[in-house]
Amino acid sequence: MAEVKVFGAWGSPFTHRVELALKLKGVEYEFIEEDVRNKSPQLLQYNPVYKKIPVLLHNGKPIAESLVILEYIDDTWEHGPSIMPKNPYDRAMARFWAKFLDEKGVSTLWKACWIPGEEHVKDKEEAQEFLQLLDNELKGKKFFGGDSFTLADIAGNFIAFWFGIIIEVVGVELMNNDKFPNLCAWIDEFNSSFKEHLPDRDQLTEVIRGRFLEASAAKS
Amino acid sequence: MAEVKVFGAWGSPFTHRVELALKLKGVEYEFIEEDVRNKSPQLLQYNPVYKKIPVLLHNGKPIAESLVILEYIDDTWEHGPSIMPKNPYDRAMARFWAKFLDEKGVSTLWKACWIPGEEHVKDKEEAQEFLQLLDNELKGKKFFGGDSFTLADIAGNFIAFWFGIIIEVVGVELMNNDKFPNLCAWIDEFNSSFKEHLPDRDQLTEVIRGRFLEASAAKS
Repeated sequence: MAEVKVFGAWGSPFTHRVELALKLKGVEYEFIEEDVRNKSPQLLQYNPVYKKIPVLLHNGKPIAESLVILEYIDDTWEHGPSIMPKNPYDRAMARFWAKFLDEKGVSTLWKACWIPGEEHVKDKEEAQEFLQLLDNELKGKKFFGGDSFTLADIAGNFIAFWFGIIIEVVGVELMNNDKFPNLCAWIDEFNSSFKEHLPDRDQLTEVIRGRFLEASAAKS
Repeated sequence: MAEVKVFGAWGSPFTHRVELALKLKGVEYEFIEEDVRNKSPQLLQYNPVYKKIPVLLHNGKPIAESLVILEYIDDTWEHGPSIMPKNPYDRAMARFWAKFLDEKGVSTLWKACWIPGEEHVKDKEEAQEFLQLLDNELKGKKFFGGDSFTLADIAGNFIAFWFGIIIEVVGVELMNNDKFPNLCAWIDEFNSSFKEHLPDRDQLTEVIRGRFLEASAAKS
């Protein structure tokens, strides 16, 4: 029996955060693909509160919520790169930006990308404000934490990798290098630093294209 | 100049979490009352992302978001009781429940209490489900973390103290000892453990009553 199991879904940025952290730490794990439309009894048993992926199972003990899992991984496996800085203020900043990216990132950008049309001017404006806040924060910095990545950078995986593909599939203009140069530089840094641990871009593009067509068909 | 400042609002459970943690640690601080309807330029400067209270200012460096502040306090001041357990799994559980109480607690209970009437049956059902999850988790335990309080218990201050007053003011039946015995025992434990650091109950009742009357007048 494997000591570490991840219950997740391929193509989910939340699942990917957990896999990325385990890979960076060099922790071997068994991946259990969940069908998010027909969740397994095991998943519901391990995460009765949110009933969501990802769940990390370590020696039979379940942990849910990707940011909670990431800190658990860092607290448990000390080898490999640190996900959390040592200094209390730097730790607070990593947690602050991770929380912000987690709470606002996916929902804000998803709304702005997924539902094009004139009526969504406000969603697009909100997305621009959100991206501007990140661009300001990243000025003169390689990562959110400075020279080294932290929890916040891993939490930003949706923006660094998924968002670019969604923009391409949907054909919406939301980001360019002139507008958000610091954010674009961070995206490049993320993709180059974690290159070997990212999902296959073509395969993810096809998955996202499929969902977009499905959502478009459901609306019309 | 004080080393530690808290920008907050009297009667805010989010502000109270920070004050409670500082008091438990024996950290002296200056409290700066913010008018949440007319926020000070200082608050906006220190929390440009959320523009919300509370903000902790320590040696001129600002930290926002109450749960982030609580972990910062624990990371920074090692004397006094620990807010975070030492064991990685216990730490993860403290963060998980704190996050759940933070994200779901205030909004779910507020909706169920504040807007009475037949049309809010669903809000009340959601509140009951939420309280049931907490009751299950607290079975056989003094605090969320077991014998000692953690981040999760402090994050639960709204339920332990504010919620009872709101129920009383609004006159809504949402909780009793028969239905949620473990949760009610935890509430008693919270109020007895932190008695000397809680807001004045009569004064808070008056503030909440005032807001309720104001909200009722605005609706009619």
